[in-house]
Amino acid sequence: MSEIPYKIYLSENEIPSAWYNVRADMKKKPAPLLNPGTGEPLKAEDLYPIFCEELSKQEMNNDDQWIDIPGEVLDFYKMYRPSPLVRAYCLEKALGTPAHIYYKFEGNNTSGSHKLNSAIAQAYYAKKQGLKGVTTETGAGQWGTALSMATAYFGLDCQVYMVKVSYEQKPFRREVMRTYGATVTPSPSMNTNVGRKINEQFPGTDGSLGCAISEAVEAATTQEGYRYVLGSVLNQVLLHQSVIGLETKAALDKIGVKADMIIGCAGGGSNLGGLISPFVGEMLRGENQYEIIAVEPASCPSFTRGSFVYDFCDTGRVCPLAKMYTLGSNFMPAPNHAGGLRYHGMSTILSQLYDDGFMKATSVKQTDVFAAAEQFARVEGILPAPESSHAIKVAIDEALKCKETGEAKNIVFGLTGTGYFDLVAYQKYNDGVMDDYIPTDDDIAASLAQCPKLG
Amino acid sequence: MSEIPYKIYLSENEIPSAWYNVRADMKKKPAPLLNPGTGEPLKAEDLYPIFCEELSKQEMNNDDQWIDIPGEVLDFYKMYRPSPLVRAYCLEKALGTPAHIYYKFEGNNTSGSHKLNSAIAQAYYAKKQGLKGVTTETGAGQWGTALSMATAYFGLDCQVYMVKVSYEQKPFRREVMRTYGATVTPSPSMNTNVGRKINEQFPGTDGSLGCAISEAVEAATTQEGYRYVLGSVLNQVLLHQSVIGLETKAALDKIGVKADMIIGCAGGGSNLGGLISPFVGEMLRGENQYEIIAVEPASCPSFTRGSFVYDFCDTGRVCPLAKMYTLGSNFMPAPNHAGGLRYHGMSTILSQLYDDGFMKATSVKQTDVFAAAEQFARVEGILPAPESSHAIKVAIDEALKCKETGEAKNIVFGLTGTGYFDLVAYQKYNDGVMDDYIPTDDDIAASLAQCPKLG
Repeated sequence: MSEIPYKIYLSENEIPSAWYNVRADMKKKPAPLLNPGTGEPLKAEDLYPIFCEELSKQEMNNDDQWIDIPGEVLDFYKMYRPSPLVRAYCLEKALGTPAHIYYKFEGNNTSGSHKLNSAIAQAYYAKKQGLKGVTTETGAGQWGTALSMATAYFGLDCQVYMVKVSYEQKPFRREVMRTYGATVTPSPSMNTNVGRKINEQFPGTDGSLGCAISEAVEAATTQEGYRYVLGSVLNQVLLHQSVIGLETKAALDKIGVKADMIIGCAGGGSNLGGLISPFVGEMLRGENQYEIIAVEPASCPSFTRGSFVYDFCDTGRVCPLAKMYTLGSNFMPAPNHAGGLRYHGMSTILSQLYDDGFMKATSVKQTDVFAAAEQFARVEGILPAPESSHAIKVAIDEALKCKETGEAKNIVFGLTGTGYFDLVAYQKYNDGVMDDYIPTDDDIAASLAQCPKLG
Repeated sequence: MSEIPYKIYLSENEIPSAWYNVRADMKKKPAPLLNPGTGEPLKAEDLYPIFCEELSKQEMNNDDQWIDIPGEVLDFYKMYRPSPLVRAYCLEKALGTPAHIYYKFEGNNTSGSHKLNSAIAQAYYAKKQGLKGVTTETGAGQWGTALSMATAYFGLDCQVYMVKVSYEQKPFRREVMRTYGATVTPSPSMNTNVGRKINEQFPGTDGSLGCAISEAVEAATTQEGYRYVLGSVLNQVLLHQSVIGLETKAALDKIGVKADMIIGCAGGGSNLGGLISPFVGEMLRGENQYEIIAVEPASCPSFTRGSFVYDFCDTGRVCPLAKMYTLGSNFMPAPNHAGGLRYHGMSTILSQLYDDGFMKATSVKQTDVFAAAEQFARVEGILPAPESSHAIKVAIDEALKCKETGEAKNIVFGLTGTGYFDLVAYQKYNDGVMDDYIPTDDDIAASLAQCPKLG
């Protein structure tokens, strides 16, 4: 055992020099985005008014297996990557399991999560296109933080629409973004038509992610030299996040270990898609087999209780239609503290892979997730983000199954981030006042009934 | 330039296997601690009722140059060490300086600072002595967090007395400690005689570090199987923190770089003492020369405006007398946000080294420190702790001097921690409402006048 170190670090020249595009190896490609007005498949050009051109092309690129990482993005990656693959010796010992547990830790940067991997790429392409700045929305604030770090690095303006209730309840996230020079506006605001309209209609509203998206998109399309960027769900984001999986694979190869099982939390799919893509690639090419498990909150179970249909990506129904596992675009997830997993839909890539049987999915309750988070923190040191802790929970469960069967499985999971800005949730858990919210079948059926009749 | 990577990582087997005890190489030893009642020098045994025996011996050990790091402590170190030495390419570029800037980053662990290096050692010796638990005080909360992580690892009870105003204003720090299983009590409490007395005398008081120390010491000495532990100032703490300097030296040696200048922030001295000790060792043995700069806040300038005399280590005047640079034990530092630097005195080791001319000291204003912190964050990614940012400020100043002279100096500084729990201070800075507090000469003279007439 002791020959494998606690932290398996790659050297800087082992950071991947190209992103891996799993779509190139998929026999069944993810279904195309559709124009919500005409129902026609979108082309890259159709996205240019909203997204950077290069990113629009990446969004539509189902063919190129590898896409070079630009040198300036690689230079930035070198400030915080390669991220460590950690052998969880202390957790294994605490569980008394014969399983070997590894986690890829993406939290050792100020954004506190893997979001930076795509933020820096998106900021780079915006800079390359000669833009002045970008707009985005943020809920929990991880994406907004990552983007403000990336835009500060490239000297771009960054306008973040932050859901009003988060803006008020998470002042520290807001201050990190401001420290990096971003303008953070509580949404709905009086800056945009859609914001003013909503404020008029619902005075004193707390806002919602759907509304913040609409404001950010309006701000991007009505200001000269701005585009809109997004931190999850999109194909381009999963592409950039493939660095997680590529490094994980390289580190495992380095120590001669083959993963049996790969576990990740699933919200929009950015982290899970990035982590598993090179492994799924091997499965798609018939080279290897892995057991892949997506973990979602019981409060927002897109894979396990949703339908695989065309649906709107946003609550405001202004964005394109995507074929995905969805709970319906007007599904209102209960106030689960894993803000990053509160999305009604799912990456179209992951949805297709799930439908084709390349991965499993399971859902877990919030209080069980925090119990696992606390157990992990006490033995492995790191205070995990609630999102990441969904993967911890299932990794622990699987390791305990190995204890029963005596199997020494190699379990790999993604530890996407740290929980320093989630202490309100930890406090609720510590005080024993955290609830579990599980939608009823009727809730989900009612929301799904409103999906457009297409595809 | 590109041959030196952004992050110089040592491998796990390059973590030092022994702490370096700089006192062994000092010709003028730090002055002994004195019994406050008799004025007699203390022996190790005199400390046993308060501190663990092994730690008491380390406190008094002026002879052994190296002290082995126990295997269980080394195993814990492997979860978060070696910490990276980072070449600040992006900062150099932003400053346009010919200087080469390096920083040793100690913030990549959940305690968010270097404090864990000593916490795990102190918890280990407590466990080894068969104790049930330890008590301590915490102000800003970094030390309390580190200690709660360390005691959780060894299954010890941990009782933290947290200054009441911090307990209320920093609920998130408190929750991290609770998540690691520590009991956090706002001080003054009703648990101890001294706490009850103070609460009676000053109803509704906000508490102070001096009072929290007194409560923690009382709690340690009145409960069977408990001892008191402390995160800075003590010789034993500087000994444990020598891992910082040893790794820094090893990483520089690996890339063939000799530091010209080493910069660290100075509160009680734990980080600075650890960082510089192997370098000072070379100076003491006449092998090498370095320019060493201690940076302290203008609001609490022990080195630059204090006196080198025997003084009480605590405001409550129950602890031993130490000969050190001090502002007087009843000096009340203004509400500087770098809570970790708000100490009236200074490590006796560093005090002696400073008095003997082995290091310089300078003081900097809080608003200048935050300006440097923000500049650093935007180019180097990491959001630094206010304490650490004192070193950043002076490193930037020195790099800009190099720009004028054209010198390509190798500047090394200690980045002791992250600022995720200091966003209230960042907010004040971002809002332009942060003040600078500088004590008057009269303030300092009045406080110094009350030092005991000794030594």
